[in-house]
Formats: sequence, C-alpha cells, structure tokens
Amino acid sequence: MELIFRQPDDFHVHLRQGKLLEALIVYIARVFRRALVMPNLKPVIANGENALQYLAEIQMAAKAVGYSEFQPLMTIYLTPQTTPKMIIEAKRVGVIAAKLYPEGMTTGSESGVSNFKALYPVFQEMQDVGMVLCLHGESPDPSLICFEREAAFLFTFFDIVTTFPKLKVVFEHVSSAEAVSVIKSMPNNVAATITAHHLVMTFNDIAGKELNAHTYCLPVPKRPVDREEIIKAATSGDPHFFFGSDSAPHLRGTKECGSAKGGVFSAPVALPVLVEVFESRDALDKLEAFVSERGARFYELPLNEGKLTLVRKPWTVPQECGAVVPFMAGKELAWQVAL
Amino acid sequence: MELIFRQPDDFHVHLRQGKLLEALIVYIARVFRRALVMPNLKPVIANGENALQYLAEIQMAAKAVGYSEFQPLMTIYLTPQTTPKMIIEAKRVGVIAAKLYPEGMTTGSESGVSNFKALYPVFQEMQDVGMVLCLHGESPDPSLICFEREAAFLFTFFDIVTTFPKLKVVFEHVSSAEAVSVIKSMPNNVAATITAHHLVMTFNDIAGKELNAHTYCLPVPKRPVDREEIIKAATSGDPHFFFGSDSAPHLRGTKECGSAKGGVFSAPVALPVLVEVFESRDALDKLEAFVSERGARFYELPLNEGKLTLVRKPWTVPQECGAVVPFMAGKELAWQVAL
Repeated sequence: MELIFRQPDDFHVHLRQGKLLEALIVYIARVFRRALVMPNLKPVIANGENALQYLAEIQMAAKAVGYSEFQPLMTIYLTPQTTPKMIIEAKRVGVIAAKLYPEGMTTGSESGVSNFKALYPVFQEMQDVGMVLCLHGESPDPSLICFEREAAFLFTFFDIVTTFPKLKVVFEHVSSAEAVSVIKSMPNNVAATITAHHLVMTFNDIAGKELNAHTYCLPVPKRPVDREEIIKAATSGDPHFFFGSDSAPHLRGTKECGSAKGGVFSAPVALPVLVEVFESRDALDKLEAFVSERGARFYELPLNEGKLTLVRKPWTVPQECGAVVPFMAGKELAWQVAL
Repeated sequence: MELIFRQPDDFHVHLRQGKLLEALIVYIARVFRRALVMPNLKPVIANGENALQYLAEIQMAAKAVGYSEFQPLMTIYLTPQTTPKMIIEAKRVGVIAAKLYPEGMTTGSESGVSNFKALYPVFQEMQDVGMVLCLHGESPDPSLICFEREAAFLFTFFDIVTTFPKLKVVFEHVSSAEAVSVIKSMPNNVAATITAHHLVMTFNDIAGKELNAHTYCLPVPKRPVDREEIIKAATSGDPHFFFGSDSAPHLRGTKECGSAKGGVFSAPVALPVLVEVFESRDALDKLEAFVSERGARFYELPLNEGKLTLVRKPWTVPQECGAVVPFMAGKELAWQVAL
C-alpha cells in the first residue's frame, strides 16, 4: 500500500551548525520541501544578518547532500535587546518569524526573555510588518515544576494575543490539554504546532520506570489525557493545528551522561509516526492538510507542488544516525518514506 | 559547632550484593547502628532462608570494613507466591518486615504484586505474628503517569489499613502532599518513612531543564508544595514520620546511559542534608527523634546507646564513591559526620 500526498513542510526544526548540520540535514531535506529553522544557536540568530549567514550555511549543507531545492525558512531569536528596528531589517531580508524563549526554559534559552511586556514594542512592529511570533509556551516561574509551565504560560499568551489582535502567533509544540483547549477557541491568526513525539509519548516514556535520555524533551510530554487532546487536535482537521517536528539532534554523549539535554531527533521517523497515528484514528484523509497545507497557509506560503510517497513496509529504526540516537531507535515502524 | 545525638538507624536502605555491597557498606555502617535492608535483589529475598544468607553476606562485608557491630534488619519480598507459612518461617528466623512492591513500579520490582487482595491472607498472618508491612506506595495502573501513582495508591492503602487494623504498616519514602495528609490522620500502627532526597528536591531537579540521571528515583520528587508538606511532617515531631534513606547505589554506567535506573545514593550525605533541612526550619531539636528514636519505637527495637557527632565544617561531596556517583556530588555541604 502506498500513500501519496503533497510534499510536507516542517514548521519547527533545529538544524544545528557545522558537522552536525552537515551530517543530519539529509534527514530533513529528503522529506520536507521547507522547514522553519529555529534560531537558538550559540550565539543566537539575533538579527537579519545572522539569519542570512545561517541560511547560506544551511543551503550549502543541503546542496552538498543533493537537496539544493530544500528551502530553509528563517527565524530570529527575541532577546531583551531586540528592537523594532531589528524586526524591520530582518523582515526585509526574508526572515518570516521571531521566536520567543522564556528565559532558561529549554536547551539554548539562556538568552531568552523573562519580562515579556518589555518586548511589546517589538510585537507591535511584528504585527505591523507581518512577522509571525513563535512562542515556546512555558512560564519561567521557578516555583512551577516542568509539568505545570505550559498551562501557566496561558496567561501571558492571552495577554499577547489580545493586545496584538492582528499578530500571527504560533504556540509551538503544544503539549497540554489546557493549551489545546485555549488554542481551539482562538481566532485564525493564532495557531499551534504539534510534534510527532508528543502524539505518541506520555511522561512515563521519559521517567516512568527508567529515565530515558533520548525521549527527554521540553515541554515534557504529559498525561494520557493530554496526549489524547493533542491527537484529536491533529487529526480533527481544525485549522489551528499543523505540523512542526521540533526535531532536535544531540550527540549521543550529550544524552548518555549524568545531565542530558532536552531534545528528540525525530526527523528520521516523523512521517512514518504521523501516518501510524492518523491511521489509528481513521484519519489518513486529514494527514495531508496537517503536514503539507495548513502550515503553509498560515505562513502565507504557496503550497508545495511536489509529492511524497510513503509505503507500508515495516522497517527497524537504526540505533544511530550520524552519532545521534534517533527517536524510536530500534523500534519497528509500519510505514516508510519512499526515497 | 558540634551536634551530638543518639546514633541513628536507617529504616530503608538498598545494600546490594557482592562487590557493590563490599565497596559501599562502609557509607551506611559508619553512620547507622541498624538499617532495614530492602529485599529487591535478583533473585529477590523471598523467604527467611534467603534473608539469613543475605544477612551473613552483609555482616561479613561490614566486618571486613571494621563495622562488625552494624546490625542489618532483614526483610522479605512479597510476591504472588508468598504464603502465610513463609511469613511464620521468616518471622522465626528474625525477619522483621515484608515489602510490597506493586509490579513494575520501581527498580527490581519485576516480581511484585498487581493483585493486592490476593495477598490478604499473607497480611493476616503478618498481623498475627507481628511482622511489619512496608509499602512501596504507588499504583501500578499503567494509565497513570509517575506523578499520579502515589496519590492513586491511597485507595489500596486505605483498604489494607482498615482491613488489618492491628497490622503495622509503613508507607515508604512518602513523596506527595496527599499521602502525608492521609498518614497524619492514621492510628499509631501506621507510619511513613521520609528520605533525605525528597526533603530537598522537586521534580525540576530531575527533568526541569536537563535530565539528571543521578537524582532520578521512584517515587519521583514532586511539586514544591509536596516537598513542603514532607519537610513539615519530618520536622514537626509527628510520630508517624521517621527516617529511611532509600539510599540506592547504581554503578555510574547504569546511570550515565540512555536508560538510567531509578535510585539515589544518598548514604554519604544523608545526615548532613538532614541537619541542614532541620536547621533551616529551626527544628534541630526534632532531629534526634526523627533519625534515632521514632523508627526504633515503631519497630519495637531498643534505642541505640551510642552517639553520633556532626560538626559544622564545610566539605565538598566527592564526585564518586566506589564507582557510584553520590547524591549531591560536587556540592558543598555545611555539616559532616565526625568519624
């Protein structure tokens, strides 16, 4: 059995730099026509100039593995030093979104923001020029444990979307029933991305009986009821929800240690996992819109013209892809991308 | 400044076997006069005969490092095959408690129980002969994430304590505000142990920003409000609560890997940590009863006659104790045991 649909886009991905970028870009570029590239490098992609340099590096890496048609969609990182002028300049050179990381809430968020209100002039400029605001939606309140941070961020989220009613806002990697419920009720300038791994994990897959470094990510997957609401949001056809993998590779040594970084390298398995989830809910007819259309429409990009084929042919996920342990390493999946 | 008090007992400890036992027994035996030894070996300590063999192994190891006066208090492991007759025989050879592990809920609980009611004839015999029931109080319901398991176990707990009103029951390593609240209201044949690490950690110390294999334990530490209730229970003088470290060493390689075992090796730091916690609550006058008296009274053992001295003298916890990374490795603590 084959499944042929419009070539997908990944609206949330970490491509890294240097050797890691060069080794792993193939896993993204061979599946996705476009990908929204996260700016949390060291140092961060703080402005349009940084974004252009990074774009060139990614394009070179993609070309080197034979995917010169792969199109990175660039973002900048909002820091306390970001100005409205930087938004205008970034927009001019093609940056389409800016990412807000609450300070210290995830890998590479040391430059993030704790005083959200101070950035409101920047959000105003983003609304004016038409740049999308991507939110890592977790409250940095240190009295909250990681489970509670997403729901607590909804107050900040409300304030942003009501203060800037024409700003396009994406709540990234939604992970809680509370956030899904709120996003559903929002107008169409507000959306959320859903990852493959939040569709299939609960917190027990990280720390239920043993501590699994390779499944650890932020926001953490939560209860079965949260996963259920995320699955329903993805498979329902609701235009608020589209795909962003948050694929985030870490070298094996930075995972298999005493203090593992957050991030799941899902790129090699994301599409097969999505197909299994949608198939399990009799919703394969909703998959194309989720991975190939709604995101593009939200970002006002043309729909891709190419096709991607998945075949039902069991395969075992390799234990390693370029010194990185992929999500679901060693597991058998029912579908694979025809390359 | 010195603090001199009655020599303490540890009413919950994992001593392991073989080389690990030999290498690490010194960290327990030099501080604690007695320790309740958990039976979750492979194979488990299933009966009195196993317990006697294990007792001899521990005594030999303690003697080899110069602590022949150290007294292991032996337990057996309740499995679906445990019979009332096995309880009588174990009691006869000196076993003082039996441990109930819900199946699959923690390290070494593969032989545990899922049908608690089936063990009621065994509990009846324990009540009759005066053997203590130690509970790993987490529900094995797979639809619950690890955070929810302790509160969900309270239904089972209620049923056991009401069905066997004279059975001595210890709710081990209490980790939630819900369980603390319930235990406070129980009669005096019911108690709970409190570890050092649940007094100082929340779940963020395991997975808040990075995943820390060396702090991972089950039950998982929970919210600040849970920790606060545990601290209050320990420092209040309530006779329901006494010390059990749940110190559980794992070789570095079984922690710093993709799939880390649960367990914190707190023995080298437990007393200094307790002193800091009690001092921070102006409750140093309650410490001796918590670590050296209430547990012994509950188990109907004579109080120890020796003394232990702690001195206020900062030290840095070593990065490794016998191939195991101790709790708080590399951290500075204010107090140390005078050896």
